[in-house]
Amino acid sequence: MARQPAKADFPVSQVRRYLEPGPIVMVSSALGGRRNIMTMGWHTVMEFTPSLVGCVIAGSNHSFALIRESRECVINLPTTALTDIVVGVGNTSGAEIDKFETFGLTAQPAMRVQAPLIAECHANFECRLYDDALVERYNFFIFEVLKAHVAKSPRHPETLHYTGNGEFVISGKVISRRRWFRPELLDS
Amino acid sequence: MARQPAKADFPVSQVRRYLEPGPIVMVSSALGGRRNIMTMGWHTVMEFTPSLVGCVIAGSNHSFALIRESRECVINLPTTALTDIVVGVGNTSGAEIDKFETFGLTAQPAMRVQAPLIAECHANFECRLYDDALVERYNFFIFEVLKAHVAKSPRHPETLHYTGNGEFVISGKVISRRRWFRPELLDS
Repeated sequence: MARQPAKADFPVSQVRRYLEPGPIVMVSSALGGRRNIMTMGWHTVMEFTPSLVGCVIAGSNHSFALIRESRECVINLPTTALTDIVVGVGNTSGAEIDKFETFGLTAQPAMRVQAPLIAECHANFECRLYDDALVERYNFFIFEVLKAHVAKSPRHPETLHYTGNGEFVISGKVISRRRWFRPELLDS
Repeated sequence: MARQPAKADFPVSQVRRYLEPGPIVMVSSALGGRRNIMTMGWHTVMEFTPSLVGCVIAGSNHSFALIRESRECVINLPTTALTDIVVGVGNTSGAEIDKFETFGLTAQPAMRVQAPLIAECHANFECRLYDDALVERYNFFIFEVLKAHVAKSPRHPETLHYTGNGEFVISGKVISRRRWFRPELLDS
């Protein structure tokens, strides 16, 4: 069983710390009695305030209808401790199995949305659909992050970054160049 | 002076190998006699064919007008060998300096667009504006990659992933889970 890290509230305006580096994430959703998890690598931060994240959720995913109709989801950040679970989630369909059960993941109630948090992930971002203007054309959803929960440590978890073809690169060393940044580009 | 890697043509439908992991990139642009470079961390792959990339280019950037009017840019992928140049480019304005000159970068002619390639980068993706539907509301540009040039090796370069606050995580170890992927999700 994977560990469930202790988490604290985190400012939604700062979720870029976890999403801008481009990790693979797991998106959880719920509608009526159904729930599901999918992996997602096509996402980008779009704004600090409101806290906006844009992402592509292909119509072929079982999660598409759940998210399209409930207009909600949770973006969960797995670390490399969950590598094999991430691969399993990405290679199975919620039409056939309950992924929480199959992969031993714990569904925790969220505060602002019906979709469940995945307790074993390093961070959970509760999201509501903010703009669906490009859903028809590109399957592109713009979500607002309403609530963020983040493990108290480490500040920079080891994350998975998908390159296609079954291969990931893993985030490694952290380097700071704070001293060379313009003050207005830094956190206070 | 940074090295200029030897490059080969690369299939535009496969640029996700370099962009999906979420690296910081340098976007070059040109309009009339002007040219510029900006750093960008808010981008996502959106489609394989046509090869689409969505990205946020804030209106406060000097590059915004050049890209908005020319409807073109080049997305250049720096490795960690260019870390200090990336930080310099991200903390200066093209309204005041020519960044190619200041940072010793080489502008190479592109094949499909007027914007120059940055020769020192690992990869160069020539882009044309494909959809500007969300530019007004979110500064969100959807580009089509028309032509891709990629260094012959390594297959997975060491890249920079920005977390905000002057800190980057660096891509590290590569792991493969090919054997656990459904065949239709793998390159042939």
